[in-house]
Amino acid sequence: MDLLGDWWTPLVLREAFYGIRRFDEFQQGLGIARNTLADRLRRLVDEGLLAKVPYQTDPVRHDYVLTEKGRDFFGVLAAMARWGDRWLADEAGPPVTFHHRSCGHDTHAEVVCAECGEPLAAADTVTRMGPGYPPRLAERPEVRRRFAGDPR
Amino acid sequence: MDLLGDWWTPLVLREAFYGIRRFDEFQQGLGIARNTLADRLRRLVDEGLLAKVPYQTDPVRHDYVLTEKGRDFFGVLAAMARWGDRWLADEAGPPVTFHHRSCGHDTHAEVVCAECGEPLAAADTVTRMGPGYPPRLAERPEVRRRFAGDPR
Repeated sequence: MDLLGDWWTPLVLREAFYGIRRFDEFQQGLGIARNTLADRLRRLVDEGLLAKVPYQTDPVRHDYVLTEKGRDFFGVLAAMARWGDRWLADEAGPPVTFHHRSCGHDTHAEVVCAECGEPLAAADTVTRMGPGYPPRLAERPEVRRRFAGDPR
Repeated sequence: MDLLGDWWTPLVLREAFYGIRRFDEFQQGLGIARNTLADRLRRLVDEGLLAKVPYQTDPVRHDYVLTEKGRDFFGVLAAMARWGDRWLADEAGPPVTFHHRSCGHDTHAEVVCAECGEPLAAADTVTRMGPGYPPRLAERPEVRRRFAGDPR
């Protein structure tokens, strides 16, 4: 989460998925301060979610283009959109809809278990400390307590 | 996204999914300033993702418990965790693992199309302006341009 900074970051990514590439278009679409936008774009480039691609040379100007790592974040945004449609949308309906070209249907995202394909719900899922849990944190009593037995 | 405030909010929710309910435990687990934590908890209660449940009366003290709306955010966090495992984890492996009780497998989240069950990828998905798109924004030329034709 640290890497994403704040909620401007997914909003910037969402614009990129809408096809936005230019600084000024991001700025107009989001109504964000230019220095905040410049900072979020720089962060996304540093973290490898966006790449700067020059579109003119004198002076140099760049497009901001999604990398593979950035494009793979689409699922997270689509899952967020689905949650928002379920819990935040008013009677007008969803602000944005999804059409899945490969199957031809209007659709929405669903988060499922990769093994059985059923929805992955908190009540059925146990979260365990994994091999990459930071060793420094793993020793702390409140962390040990949290992962001892079923966390819910 | 506005409602969530900043990235502390999903981190607070994540702790709640680990079974954390008490202010002090959130505070220790996150290493977050007490006033920031109080603000994020208040926001999550106001937005209906957490509920305050008294566990003692004199003085009154509360647990913070996930509501149905809050529990439904699990899929978004699980999708984020999967993205992080794919793109951020080092060779030690994932910091946290998921076990799906209902199918009995260690697993991870996958974001799929609700219609065909295949992974929902940006390259195959068209995003369109929905019926609930804010009318005030829908009129703006940069928004019209963004949703005209295939956005990618």
